[in-house]
Amino acid sequence: MEWPPTYDKTYSPSADSEYWDRRAETMSPDERQAAVLAKLGHQVRYTFENSEFYREFWREAGVDPANIDSLEDFRQLPILTKDDLRREQEAHPPYGRYLCVPEERILRIHGTSGTTGKPTIFGISDDDWDRIAEAHARILWSAGLRPDDSVIVAAVFSAYIGSWGALVGAERLGAKCFPFGAGAPQQTERAVDWIGMLQPTALYGTPSYALYLASTARQMGVDPRRDFNFRLMFFSGEPGASIPSTRKEIEEAFGCYVVDQGSMAEMTPWMTNSGCRHMSRGMHLWDDIVYAELLDPETRAPGLSGGEAVPVYTHLERTSQPMIRYWSGDLARWDTSTCECGRTYTTLPDGLSGRVDDMIIVRGQSIFPSKIEDVLRGMPEFGGEFRLVIDREPGRMDSLTVQAEVARDAAGVDQVEERFAEELRRAVGVGQWS
Amino acid sequence: MEWPPTYDKTYSPSADSEYWDRRAETMSPDERQAAVLAKLGHQVRYTFENSEFYREFWREAGVDPANIDSLEDFRQLPILTKDDLRREQEAHPPYGRYLCVPEERILRIHGTSGTTGKPTIFGISDDDWDRIAEAHARILWSAGLRPDDSVIVAAVFSAYIGSWGALVGAERLGAKCFPFGAGAPQQTERAVDWIGMLQPTALYGTPSYALYLASTARQMGVDPRRDFNFRLMFFSGEPGASIPSTRKEIEEAFGCYVVDQGSMAEMTPWMTNSGCRHMSRGMHLWDDIVYAELLDPETRAPGLSGGEAVPVYTHLERTSQPMIRYWSGDLARWDTSTCECGRTYTTLPDGLSGRVDDMIIVRGQSIFPSKIEDVLRGMPEFGGEFRLVIDREPGRMDSLTVQAEVARDAAGVDQVEERFAEELRRAVGVGQWS
Repeated sequence: MEWPPTYDKTYSPSADSEYWDRRAETMSPDERQAAVLAKLGHQVRYTFENSEFYREFWREAGVDPANIDSLEDFRQLPILTKDDLRREQEAHPPYGRYLCVPEERILRIHGTSGTTGKPTIFGISDDDWDRIAEAHARILWSAGLRPDDSVIVAAVFSAYIGSWGALVGAERLGAKCFPFGAGAPQQTERAVDWIGMLQPTALYGTPSYALYLASTARQMGVDPRRDFNFRLMFFSGEPGASIPSTRKEIEEAFGCYVVDQGSMAEMTPWMTNSGCRHMSRGMHLWDDIVYAELLDPETRAPGLSGGEAVPVYTHLERTSQPMIRYWSGDLARWDTSTCECGRTYTTLPDGLSGRVDDMIIVRGQSIFPSKIEDVLRGMPEFGGEFRLVIDREPGRMDSLTVQAEVARDAAGVDQVEERFAEELRRAVGVGQWS
Repeated sequence: MEWPPTYDKTYSPSADSEYWDRRAETMSPDERQAAVLAKLGHQVRYTFENSEFYREFWREAGVDPANIDSLEDFRQLPILTKDDLRREQEAHPPYGRYLCVPEERILRIHGTSGTTGKPTIFGISDDDWDRIAEAHARILWSAGLRPDDSVIVAAVFSAYIGSWGALVGAERLGAKCFPFGAGAPQQTERAVDWIGMLQPTALYGTPSYALYLASTARQMGVDPRRDFNFRLMFFSGEPGASIPSTRKEIEEAFGCYVVDQGSMAEMTPWMTNSGCRHMSRGMHLWDDIVYAELLDPETRAPGLSGGEAVPVYTHLERTSQPMIRYWSGDLARWDTSTCECGRTYTTLPDGLSGRVDDMIIVRGQSIFPSKIEDVLRGMPEFGGEFRLVIDREPGRMDSLTVQAEVARDAAGVDQVEERFAEELRRAVGVGQWS
């Protein structure tokens, strides 16, 4: 096989085709596994040959990556974490020795926002950029995007890479792209004006931005359902698009359908976790582009279908900074039941529903902020914003307080508080809420 | 000839070559004129055949664009203004009937910021985008950018198109690109951090942003000359890079050289007015990519070399929204003396030094704000910001007041005021300043 793969940049399926690549997307699990294994072998060998970092990392773990003939072989490789990458970039700035191409092959530099520490820096090679475009186009096709769509990319264009991936993918698919960005003062008001003028049919951004856009439009006397023309919105960066109430709120505000996308900054702009247009929520794992293991959060052994697992990602066609067995820290329920779309990928029916490190344990009970958001957004009395306050004093029981905004037109605050507490008790299962 | 031209996307000159395309850039004025004429004929015929707007516009002016055999023929076509475009887009939203390709051929949608009225909308076709990349790469090559450079694009990525042109050109040239953007709260502080980490060798932005970046860096304890690694900066969007004092301030702050670029939003992202690395200031007119007539601001007849003229632009290889004889409203001195670089393009030695409509007439004297800026920035006592206040009361003489910030470490304010007034009198030539 040819590795890394190159793709014909002029290819496009016919507009009525469900698939960008029918064979790849609908092959049987056994065929897929063989295809993935072949790519895995190439990717690991390439990485071993071109990265001093990985050679050391694997030698220290006492494993020999020379021949990967089975997934069992592959699972001998150690799991890689964000801390490993941070330490490596600090010791060998700026890219770390897992940049497997000479620096002059880098086309794009991006990075994480660095809100929780020093940013991680991404160097993306020109040929990777082409494969990213191809993968993203193929996945956006499954989301229902077509060449006659026009897409407003309403997420900031900066070091953050999500917006760039959406743009290059939508361009490769042949849609009209309006890269408007976000984040500057008054930019959302101007977005409302531009959307009114251009009537785009699709939007990329974050779910919370879409809700903010709808509310800004209403404040300006614009009805986002009547005055805009959105057919679909695809999101990443936040779990909201798979949170039923948030998703419903967006779909109703704009009269469109929603597709959830997104994995990890280190894996993107390959946006290989993505819903298709047939799913009411959740995402497929396009694991012939990025291989995803689903491991038990405690034992790190392969998890059970139907249960909750941590996705651990491996690039399959990246030359610049490949991630091999990268621990996401996300939590997701998964199953292999077939989707209406006919694709044979594993599904995360709730999307990425939490993070191992976001999970709050209060009085021995695991609680996810996303679950609380879901409950609140399901209630008409909810005003839109909420905050969780955790009190941990030695010698006392932990307490979790949910502070929630109440909608302007709701009944008396006491009654609403009672309703909120009741619903949260029911859904989250904690005995006493205050 | 092939029109519209297509370019080999893999071509690159050797790194020690002065030129991207030696023949095109150094041909004699007669050869250039013949080459331009050939393209002009194709561009006008194409536009006539594909644009209902232009057909009407030219018919109403009573001219027949069927055969353009000379520049005299070409000059029979009417001059197009921003108002013409605004009216057309209002009547035929969103692109106007000068979009000469079917909407589905549009790759990118951009627009003006609309700060002075309704935005103008640009629809750019996929093949135009490739030609834009080629032209921009060729011009950035003359600015001294090379494939081993790394470029931070520090201008907002949104509807505004300057940053996108810089990005696609630098990518095509093969440089490493870090599209960081600008404009979000605290983004400049983060830019200082990122520049420290990545040590880019080139920057694109506006001159005023570069000065703001330097001052932000200093406030953070970072010396932009010692701690950064900039070799060159190229600017558009403001005239500052050809204002000697602003240019000098930037070059000294960063220890780099500066290249001025920029024409009109309607002509970009072809950035066909650009200095080369040999010029101490000013720009060449790359008029085999965009043809530029230099017309007398009053008579609209061809101006005289050495005098001041209004550039009037015509695309030569644009399929999507060609501008034919577009009145820029800018004012520039021009000459045809040869540059050290060996290119045979006409030069605007002061860049775009003013606008016909920015020109302030006070007591019969023409004054340009850019000239006042130049004087102020040349004085060490100047604190960085200034404002012009014009008083026009019936029955009284006009008065122009210059309010200027004084540097923290300057002598007494009265003395400084006296110095400022003296320098402004000398340079601008107005008798009495208050």
